Amino acid sequence: MVKQERAARTREVLVRAAAEVFAEEGFVTASIAAISKRAGVSAGGLHFHFGSKTALAEAVARRASATLRTITVSRVPDGNALQTLVDSTHELMELLARDPVVNAGFGLCAGTGAVTLTARGGGAGWDLRVQWQRWVEGTFRAAQREGRLADGVSPQAAAAAVVAAMVGFGVLGAGAGGSRQFGPSGVTPYWQLMLPRLAARGSLGELVPDGSDAVRASLPY
Amino acid sequence: MVKQERAARTREVLVRAAAEVFAEEGFVTASIAAISKRAGVSAGGLHFHFGSKTALAEAVARRASATLRTITVSRVPDGNALQTLVDSTHELMELLARDPVVNAGFGLCAGTGAVTLTARGGGAGWDLRVQWQRWVEGTFRAAQREGRLADGVSPQAAAAAVVAAMVGFGVLGAGAGGSRQFGPSGVTPYWQLMLPRLAARGSLGELVPDGSDAVRASLPY
Repeated sequence: MVKQERAARTREVLVRAAAEVFAEEGFVTASIAAISKRAGVSAGGLHFHFGSKTALAEAVARRASATLRTITVSRVPDGNALQTLVDSTHELMELLARDPVVNAGFGLCAGTGAVTLTARGGGAGWDLRVQWQRWVEGTFRAAQREGRLADGVSPQAAAAAVVAAMVGFGVLGAGAGGSRQFGPSGVTPYWQLMLPRLAARGSLGELVPDGSDAVRASLPY
Repeated sequence: MVKQERAARTREVLVRAAAEVFAEEGFVTASIAAISKRAGVSAGGLHFHFGSKTALAEAVARRASATLRTITVSRVPDGNALQTLVDSTHELMELLARDPVVNAGFGLCAGTGAVTLTARGGGAGWDLRVQWQRWVEGTFRAAQREGRLADGVSPQAAAAAVVAAMVGFGVLGAGAGGSRQFGPSGVTPYWQLMLPRLAARGSLGELVPDGSDAVRASLPY
């Protein structure tokens, strides 16, 4: 049992090191040697757990996907879909800013040369961003059923706008050049701007752009 | 003169090839040999025009910056700042989708490992995205002066939302996995959603989410 725990711990360290090296050097450039060195695990040890760089990338994507689920589909609904969405974007930006596994899994990189990490489950491949976009669109449809979405707002267009903005916030908030207008600190002003357009008249007052109490308590800013 | 023209043409071919290779392989991985092969210019010819990969990257950024200026600061103002902004986003998304130089210059890539190409002018370095963001914010302030920005909308927050969304549209619309909700075809639904929030009551009717006539005529979709 102790041996199994140690193996699980080693796998976790390797996945985290791989995510960091992928984020810094890109998947193509990243070397197994760099990942092994970063993790403090021998090349043989790495090979025992992960047969290839692709296997490591898949493990990163699976871990990122599991984390993403905890702030989206697995969330206990509080009966207000728009607030649930606001809360999840605060958590997502925070994760993208500090969790290299989620960051690498989200593949904040464009162009054909960028590797979008995909996790495979049940035989079907999926992309983390697609997974998240579907959830956002479903959440807007739930808000519509609750009568909380403003008349004339298309759940699909609203989801596209929010998903694109959050990807942009992640890209523009990253690295040393990241502006405070983006990344985690940009999320509250974003919702202050957007909620008057998205929320039905009468439900705007219920919504907290900086996240509900429970979420605010869990965020470091 | 013919010789000068040929040299200018060769430089243009090299800059374009470099942009394509940077976009496909990333700046770090991209080799001078691949750029030279793509351009159909000998290694010696490449070296005559550009002393290093960094010099090529700077040329890409300068070209992208010049193109960006033609759809932003150099635009003849038509007296309606919000419409000018709508028009420029249509053109920017179109450029990002089809012009590898603008795409590479815009550096649609996050993470510390990504090279954000910067162009230097007048001794000060600037980032294409920062350059664009400043223009968007200035345009929202102009809309405010015109009395066309909705009460209570902060030009800074509006600019952050629009810039982030357009970066997201660029990232999510790129490559084979690009969705039609993003990229150029996502811009009209985006403004249909946003303009009722951003435009002052009474000026919404003047605005065309799919771009003014002149811009629509120039777009291929």
